[in-house]
Parts: sequence; C-alpha cells; structure tokens
Amino acid sequence: MLAEDQFYDNLFRRLPAAPPEVVVPPGDDCAGVEFTPGTVTLYTVDQVAADVHYCKTGNSPARPEEVARKLLARNISDIAAMGGRPLYCLTAIVQQNGEDKWLNSFFGGLADYARQFGIAVIGGDIITSPDGENASLTLIGEVESRQVCRRNGAEERDILFATGSFGNSFASGWHMSFQPRYEEGRWLAENGFAKAMIDVSDGLLLDAFRICRASGVSLILDTASIPLRSDDAAYQQALTEGEDYELLLAVGADRAEELVRSWPFDIPLTQLGTFSAHKPSVIEDARGNYLAPAENIGYQQGL
Amino acid sequence: MLAEDQFYDNLFRRLPAAPPEVVVPPGDDCAGVEFTPGTVTLYTVDQVAADVHYCKTGNSPARPEEVARKLLARNISDIAAMGGRPLYCLTAIVQQNGEDKWLNSFFGGLADYARQFGIAVIGGDIITSPDGENASLTLIGEVESRQVCRRNGAEERDILFATGSFGNSFASGWHMSFQPRYEEGRWLAENGFAKAMIDVSDGLLLDAFRICRASGVSLILDTASIPLRSDDAAYQQALTEGEDYELLLAVGADRAEELVRSWPFDIPLTQLGTFSAHKPSVIEDARGNYLAPAENIGYQQGL
Repeated sequence: MLAEDQFYDNLFRRLPAAPPEVVVPPGDDCAGVEFTPGTVTLYTVDQVAADVHYCKTGNSPARPEEVARKLLARNISDIAAMGGRPLYCLTAIVQQNGEDKWLNSFFGGLADYARQFGIAVIGGDIITSPDGENASLTLIGEVESRQVCRRNGAEERDILFATGSFGNSFASGWHMSFQPRYEEGRWLAENGFAKAMIDVSDGLLLDAFRICRASGVSLILDTASIPLRSDDAAYQQALTEGEDYELLLAVGADRAEELVRSWPFDIPLTQLGTFSAHKPSVIEDARGNYLAPAENIGYQQGL
Repeated sequence: MLAEDQFYDNLFRRLPAAPPEVVVPPGDDCAGVEFTPGTVTLYTVDQVAADVHYCKTGNSPARPEEVARKLLARNISDIAAMGGRPLYCLTAIVQQNGEDKWLNSFFGGLADYARQFGIAVIGGDIITSPDGENASLTLIGEVESRQVCRRNGAEERDILFATGSFGNSFASGWHMSFQPRYEEGRWLAENGFAKAMIDVSDGLLLDAFRICRASGVSLILDTASIPLRSDDAAYQQALTEGEDYELLLAVGADRAEELVRSWPFDIPLTQLGTFSAHKPSVIEDARGNYLAPAENIGYQQGL
C-alpha cells in the first residue's frame, strides 16, 4: 500500500458519510455531485508550489504565466479523466511579496488558458506570506451521469490503453507544457469506451495500480509496448517518473478493435496490457515479474 | 480606492465574461451559479497561512485542529453572508514535513467542525514543500435564488445593522474561535430582511465601504453605537482591525422595527447607521467627518 493512498483511505473512513447526491465520493480524480438527475457536477482541487512543481529559483525560473497554465492544466486533466467538461474555477494564491506584476502575469496566463477551454474564473483569494509561494485551484466541471468514467469499472479481460507517451517529463519540459487530454477524454466518455479511466500524474505504474485497486482486478502490463516520450527515457522512468498527464483506460475486449479503428486523434493510443482476476491489485509484466508499486515509486505529495 | 479591491476590479475586467448562469460574478462574498432555475450554487475560496492567520511559531502555537476550524469557519462566514447553506468542501494543504500526525489532527478538526454544519468533505490535495505551511479551502453552498444576499442592494434611507460586536479580535483569540453567523444569515435571508449583506473579515469600515461601492450609496455611520467586543477595544480598532466575522446588512427603513422586534438570537443586533445618496462610496460619522477607508486600513491580504 502506498503512503499517500493509505493516508487518504484512512482519512475517508473517518469523515462523515457523504450525502446520497455525492455520487462520486472522494478517492477518484474528481468528486461528483448529482444536483439534478442526469448530470454530475465534478469537483477537483490541485496545487503547485515553488521549487516543487515549478522552478522559482535556479537558472531558468518559470514565468508566472507558465505556473498558472500548469496549475489549470493539471486540474483539466482530472476533469478529462472523468470524461467531463471544465466550466468554472477558483484559485487561492500565496505570494511572498504581493507583487502586482507577478499576480498580473499569473492571472493573465490563467485567463488566457482558461479562455481556450471556455472556463470562467469565478473567484480567488490572494495572501502575502514571508514563506514560500504556492497556488491552489478548484475546478468545477460536468459530465452526463451515464458517461462518468471512474476508476472502479475495470473487469477481467478488459484491455488497458494509454494515450500519448511516457517518461522524461521533467527534463523535457513536458511537465510545464503538457496538453491535458480533454478532447480525448470527452470522446472516450461519449462513445462509452472507457469502463475505467485515470490521468497519469503520479507515474504509469502507480496510476494503473489505482485502477486495479479500485476495481479489484490485477494487470498484466506489457512494459515493452510503452511508448516513450523520447529515446533517452528509460522504461523504469516511464513507469514511475510521473507528470505525464496521459489517460489510462480500461476497455472491454469486445470493443478494443473498434476503438483502435475509430480513434480520431493525432496522438497515439496504445494497448499496454490486460486486466485479470488473478490476484487483486497486482501488476505483473508479460513474464510474470511482479511490478506492484512500492512505497517509493510514483510522484506523491511533491517531487 | 483600496489596493486589493482595485487589483481585483482590474483583474475582473480582464477576465472573459462569465456565462449567463453565473448569476453572481466574482466580487461578492461568493460566486453564484444557477444550474437550475430557483437555486443558486455558491462558491467561495479562502486560505490560512502559518504566522499570518495563525501562530505557528511563538509561545502558544495554534493546534492543527484549530487551524482547520478557522479555515472552514472563514468560508462558512462567506456563505452566511450570501444567506446560504454550506454543503461540501475541498481543501488543499501545503505542509512542511508531510507529517501524518499534523495532517491527521488537521483533518480531525476539519471533520469535527464540518459535521456540526452538515458539510461533506469531498476532496483534497496535500503537498510537501520546504517552505511555509498553508491551506486553502473551497466551500460549496446553496441558496434559493430569490434569497441571495449580495453587496449591491443597499439604497438611500436603508438602515445599516450589524450582528455581534467588534474589535480586539486578535488579542482576545476571537479570530481563532469565532462562530460564523450561519443561522443568523439564513434567518435574515429567509425573512427577506437583508437587501445587501457582507461579512466583516477586513474591518467594519472597509466592509461597509464595499457595500457602499457595490450599491452606489454612501453611509452615515454612528461610530458611538458600535458594540465593542471588550472594554479595551478602541473604536478605531473596532473600525479597522478586522477578523470580526460579524454580518453587516442593509435593511429597508420600513422593516427595521420589525427586524429588531422579531430578532430571535442571543447575540445582539445593532443599528449602526443610515445609507444615503449624498455622495456615492463615502462614509461619514454623525458629525460629518469623513471616514472613507484609506489604503492602509482594514485587513487585506494577510496581517
């Protein structure tokens, strides 16, 4: 069991039970509330901190616009993993100097990127603190109730697919410039291909493991088939580095061929493995080597 | 014009216009979205930082439970100021050591206080950073569309009322232990007394000024009638220190007597002044002395 997941599991057990309209409780990429039948409102919160998620000091510090873009993109990736559309956001900022220039650049970047997705910025809070610099953002989205893609729908014999490629996110700058797979996630949800879905923020292996655990299945992962972002990305790095922001999904074996044939996007869609009922929550490679995530792999709570 | 308000005004002008269902745009205590006619979903975000909003170092550091309680209570106060009911929250935490003990105490305190208001904790994110310690919380609530209490409804001859008392919030510990005026806010909204309402987080004078500015009216404030939290709270402090978390509201002159007669709560409700069309956005005391907030009064972006 992983430290962060274990912590959240324990925490969720201590919280009062969510009311019945909370149809997706905490523990998925987003929480979901069905205010009116047929539509689920999605909620996710994510954050970035200086010198953890972006370079503040050092040779090439991130511009405030880039920080804002990454913060919003991370949250859009969570909405995409549920099959949803992003709608509104609120952001809370801790800034060391309360500099108008930094804040104006940050909000300029946020507004520009939000506009591309039709997201309205509906609230915010700014504080000045002598320590650190960080920002959190809550993103609100929606998805039709019958199209919600959770983590817990994978079954024996389902096929694991992934969008895009993996590894080398930090060295290549992908972790700042990635495009969340919003259109892809919507298309997969609308066409009913994704029985389970998650975005890869904490490493392919850890996020695949989360589907296994939520679904009560195991996975045989064909590590040799993982598309690498660049030639110098090692497979171990592609499995564990994280910040790929690609989608992992479970597809029924009877629909896999149709999915590959009809995939309308330029980025690759790759078959990576098969779910099994062998042993719940275990990942093995094609030769039966145990790959289940250990405490120290994946991203988890910062770099 | 005040630095923070000016900054937000400029910012809101640069953001893309919110879609029509955003019936309460940014710039009020909460934003409001009318997903379905008749009900407005309210959104607010607020945050606390170590040694800005609570003591982390020093002789009597705040316990993590107290930090969580204050963070949630601040947000409940914003929902209360709109006349709403709190429903769900998400929290994002930056913690220096990633200590399970600190986090468990924080979430224990959050769960306990949330339970008192029937609020479900539906999401969260935790990161570890070498710098600082802070937390943000997004609170989601709702209010009947015809009961929404905004800042912009005050008119000439309306009476300014306030709940509770003012001043000395920090020295007395009130800023950590205050009770948000949730039941009072709901009652005022349900009975249609509050034509405009705001919670006093940044100082009585600044928050009263915000009603004036949003409503295009001025205010004659009877400073001698301000109830002081304790004998050693000076009037100037009661006007400007902030973190009182009381409600300020504008009530039609024809309903003021009825309000006072029917007020069902133990905490006092006090008449503090009269709105006027004299000069927009000006506050004067009973002798005509100009009280309009200057750059350096009120709370604004931390202590």
